[in-house]
Amino acid sequence: MSPKITTELLKQLRQVMKNPKYVQEPVQAYIVPSGDAHQSEYIAPCDCRRAFISGFDGSAGTAIVTEQHAAMWTDGRYFLQAAHQMDNNWTLMKMGVKDTPTQEDWLVSVLPEGSKVGVDPFIIPTDQWKRMSKALRSAGHDLVPVKENLIDTIWTDCPQRPCKPLIMLDLSYTGVSWRDKITALRSKMAERKVMWFVVTALDEVAWLFNLRGSDVEYNPVFFAYAVIGMNTIRLFIDGDRMMDPAVREHLQLDSTLEPEFKIQVMPYGSILSELQAVGAGLSPKEKVWLSDKASYALTEAIPKAYRYLTPYTPICIAKAVKNASETEGMRRAHIKDAVALCELFNWLEKEVPKGTVTEIIAADKAEEFRSQQKDFVELSFATISSTGPNGAIIHYKPVPETNRTLSVNEIYLLDSGAQYKDGTTDVTRTMHFGTPSAYEKECFTYVLKGHIAVSAAIFPNGTKGHLLDSFARSALWDCGLDYLHGTGHGVGSFLNVHEGPCGISYKTFADEPLEAGMIVSDEPGYYEDGSFGIRIENVVLVIPAETKYNFKNRGSLTFEPLTLVPIQTKMIDVNLLTQKECNWVNDYHQKCREVVGAELERQGRHEALQWLIRETEPLVRVQ
Amino acid sequence: MSPKITTELLKQLRQVMKNPKYVQEPVQAYIVPSGDAHQSEYIAPCDCRRAFISGFDGSAGTAIVTEQHAAMWTDGRYFLQAAHQMDNNWTLMKMGVKDTPTQEDWLVSVLPEGSKVGVDPFIIPTDQWKRMSKALRSAGHDLVPVKENLIDTIWTDCPQRPCKPLIMLDLSYTGVSWRDKITALRSKMAERKVMWFVVTALDEVAWLFNLRGSDVEYNPVFFAYAVIGMNTIRLFIDGDRMMDPAVREHLQLDSTLEPEFKIQVMPYGSILSELQAVGAGLSPKEKVWLSDKASYALTEAIPKAYRYLTPYTPICIAKAVKNASETEGMRRAHIKDAVALCELFNWLEKEVPKGTVTEIIAADKAEEFRSQQKDFVELSFATISSTGPNGAIIHYKPVPETNRTLSVNEIYLLDSGAQYKDGTTDVTRTMHFGTPSAYEKECFTYVLKGHIAVSAAIFPNGTKGHLLDSFARSALWDCGLDYLHGTGHGVGSFLNVHEGPCGISYKTFADEPLEAGMIVSDEPGYYEDGSFGIRIENVVLVIPAETKYNFKNRGSLTFEPLTLVPIQTKMIDVNLLTQKECNWVNDYHQKCREVVGAELERQGRHEALQWLIRETEPLVRVQ
Repeated sequence: MSPKITTELLKQLRQVMKNPKYVQEPVQAYIVPSGDAHQSEYIAPCDCRRAFISGFDGSAGTAIVTEQHAAMWTDGRYFLQAAHQMDNNWTLMKMGVKDTPTQEDWLVSVLPEGSKVGVDPFIIPTDQWKRMSKALRSAGHDLVPVKENLIDTIWTDCPQRPCKPLIMLDLSYTGVSWRDKITALRSKMAERKVMWFVVTALDEVAWLFNLRGSDVEYNPVFFAYAVIGMNTIRLFIDGDRMMDPAVREHLQLDSTLEPEFKIQVMPYGSILSELQAVGAGLSPKEKVWLSDKASYALTEAIPKAYRYLTPYTPICIAKAVKNASETEGMRRAHIKDAVALCELFNWLEKEVPKGTVTEIIAADKAEEFRSQQKDFVELSFATISSTGPNGAIIHYKPVPETNRTLSVNEIYLLDSGAQYKDGTTDVTRTMHFGTPSAYEKECFTYVLKGHIAVSAAIFPNGTKGHLLDSFARSALWDCGLDYLHGTGHGVGSFLNVHEGPCGISYKTFADEPLEAGMIVSDEPGYYEDGSFGIRIENVVLVIPAETKYNFKNRGSLTFEPLTLVPIQTKMIDVNLLTQKECNWVNDYHQKCREVVGAELERQGRHEALQWLIRETEPLVRVQ
Repeated sequence: MSPKITTELLKQLRQVMKNPKYVQEPVQAYIVPSGDAHQSEYIAPCDCRRAFISGFDGSAGTAIVTEQHAAMWTDGRYFLQAAHQMDNNWTLMKMGVKDTPTQEDWLVSVLPEGSKVGVDPFIIPTDQWKRMSKALRSAGHDLVPVKENLIDTIWTDCPQRPCKPLIMLDLSYTGVSWRDKITALRSKMAERKVMWFVVTALDEVAWLFNLRGSDVEYNPVFFAYAVIGMNTIRLFIDGDRMMDPAVREHLQLDSTLEPEFKIQVMPYGSILSELQAVGAGLSPKEKVWLSDKASYALTEAIPKAYRYLTPYTPICIAKAVKNASETEGMRRAHIKDAVALCELFNWLEKEVPKGTVTEIIAADKAEEFRSQQKDFVELSFATISSTGPNGAIIHYKPVPETNRTLSVNEIYLLDSGAQYKDGTTDVTRTMHFGTPSAYEKECFTYVLKGHIAVSAAIFPNGTKGHLLDSFARSALWDCGLDYLHGTGHGVGSFLNVHEGPCGISYKTFADEPLEAGMIVSDEPGYYEDGSFGIRIENVVLVIPAETKYNFKNRGSLTFEPLTLVPIQTKMIDVNLLTQKECNWVNDYHQKCREVVGAELERQGRHEALQWLIRETEPLVRVQ
């Protein structure tokens, strides 16, 4: 990897930072965040502006360019990569390392008094704008919105914004029509005495209209905004996608509808002016609801007194609670996904000893088996296929430079998932194709104990996921071990594999309480730098639990695993399990055998079925 | 209990709310919070202004009086009491009940446009001022500081502010001299580039100067402020307490000292004008450090640009980590406290069957036994002595109207503690003097399992207490049970029985990480409304834990119980315990027997020793 030469680009950027054509007054610093206008986790090539200006293309990083300096903030995952990809015009700011200044502190230290700091208000989320703006103001500087993106002005060969065809989901997948979703949203708006709701997150637009897209990788979404009034629906979307008769039919664009369900289709780029018009026409007490992660440009379009900002939108919360059709779809998707993984692991068991299977080959093979399954659409994230020391790199993705060959001497960790039209999967299994050491088994078993402690936990209705995080760590903690990531994230239903507002992590506090129908991952791990990585991940569904007593009629919840892939018993030190834990593993494997076995049978995959049967033999605990 | 007649008082208050002698402009509403100028948990009679104006004397409540209305906000513990104590001039605002407006929302709903809302800036903490002020301003009203407390102007027989003699603690109790504490504080100030630190919490003043007092009940503190500069020390304190030669000697008031350790003693009432003088004399970049819980009056004395506010002060954090002398003192105090409780429980065992022991008699008897111990000072909080259904009232305190007789048919819960010169105790035991039912034993055992899960937990350095809270609930949750309070609070060393900045609760997130030397309570419970209450509470010390592996050299922590009072084995269903839990109980009882037994022996308390030996017989678990 040789660094991108950015001298000329930076020179051009510094020119436009002073060019009255683009800025009202010269800006002494310009911030280039990672995100797109929707705060998406995965972004389209046209939105990779920070990578364009710096060369650094990791998933997280913020660039700031001043007249004298160019600096890049990123976290520990990317220190090496960023150092390789950037030339010496750039200073790497290692986040999480002591003495690394925050962006605000650094700006204050390098800027002349009374400076203007520019940022594209469409790219910066409102909560971040507020924080940054306050910090700069208290030091005598100003954060200013620069309407035209300055990177775009110098990015001559910037790719087009994608505009791929839409996928329509009927009621058998979604369970609820888009009209009923709009009605439910309006009743939430009425509860909060809000007249308008602005949908800015791409997965929220997709969910609301029962549509999917493929404008970005992994997340089945499309570029669009929506503005929902009590009597109007405006959808901001580009391209000829709205010419497709099936889409028109799905959205009933040509039907005679009650006016409050008539969708007005408008150009994607007109959101700001339309929202400004809404803002200008508000009567007193008419509030407009936005996420506090919405871009500052949209928030600013609404006069301050009329804004109603919340960290989680009503769509985000409704979307998290899956209905019966979605749950059934997720079950089907996970059975198909398990079939693909049984095929893969059976294949690996035979091929690995030959010494010809690399991490990339294994990842490709996993994709191949998945793509054979009905309604397969794409992967749900970049496959983490890692063996030996690579397994200890938590966000590893194999590339030719690091690609390692699987062997019978090393642990193999595969964290992968797919988008099917009926559901999204995300599963991690850690396997050994030879004989694991006692220490590897010991660590694996602690991780498994943590996985079970969460999966089998019973907890009252209203409990937030972060209160369950320590259950996953307790067995590791007892021996002085731990893992430096959260335990679980929300999972969408044929939508983003990472979604809010719930999760299981010591890091959050503002998560929404878990509710029956929510779907999260349960993925504790253990990572030994330079040696191996272990993670055991199932996607689990929150379900009501029957308890002996029912304290104050609050009701209780627990989890049901949707993922049904055997957990390698060879890696388990059964004597470290309690009888209850041992029963959990045996019950789980029994279910894998029954449910996935039947599907393997149906698909005529007899060899994989034999593998499944071997791998689900009950554990026996010696007292 | 008949309500206080407040018609005349309210009339007078409404007059002074318009009287230019006290207010620059008339205020349309006046807020009377619970607290004193130091945000103390226990307040002196002269600070009970809310009780004076309303009649309601519970520990928590805020009164707001407008020209037309008088309203009182309090929580579920006090709904009944407040309703009884207040006449019908008052509207009770039940906090935590759906549709009860917040104070801000209520004010906005009843006030005419552009109103002024007054409050004594000495009584309202800064963070609360900011919240309230912002909410009122956004609705077109103004929160204004009223310098003279309006209640005091009409409270003709207001008691004097207490001014009791001071207790000096020498190095054998405190481990660190006040000079070394000042030096350490100044180095924390230097780290944050702060020139002044204002000590506003009474326990922080007491800790800093190694002094104690008795100006309020239960907390061994005295009314004072301190302002620490890099070269100056100012102590604001009233009365002839500074005439006591021993105090003068302790503070070295008459010695030739380096100037930076020379204490200037000033009147308590001069804090504001002195702080204003400090504020007026600041050069650029000279910051003044205050707690964000400091009164708004003091914060306001410092120009905004010079304020440095934090939720926890460096004294709060230093005070929480006990040194070897303090830890040893706490151990001694807990042994003496255990002696008193062995005596009490032995006495109760004999007396309860006679039917002559009431909750109040039992509480008094506990105090009597405690007061026989060396260095006993006072109780550390109002004893919760409760039997049968009273036990289910979490903050119960026996009064003649509710006083119940202990019997062999009901569970008895005693939550009590004392201040000794060497330490502070807080212990809860739940006993049955007859034969508990299977259900009572079952619930008790779940609570015990939770108590053990926290007490025996091993966790990495840097873990915050709130991450341990679910361990205490897991066994209860499994059966659909729970308790509606946190699991633990910080405990002072011959100081406040409740102190920050650490604790074990699902409710907090901003607690500071647990560190070796911190002392907290571990007190899960279970409460069956109308029937019984169960709580098992030990005070525990955070200590380093040896683990098999030591992940990234972070080190691990666990707890050592300081409380050494038997847990009634009669209440335990031993078959619900794991072998590990059973061993924990037996090891704990073995330690009680050895350590407290030796002290009972030494004090010649043979009957209580026999009781201790009986109560610490090992449990045997039948497989």
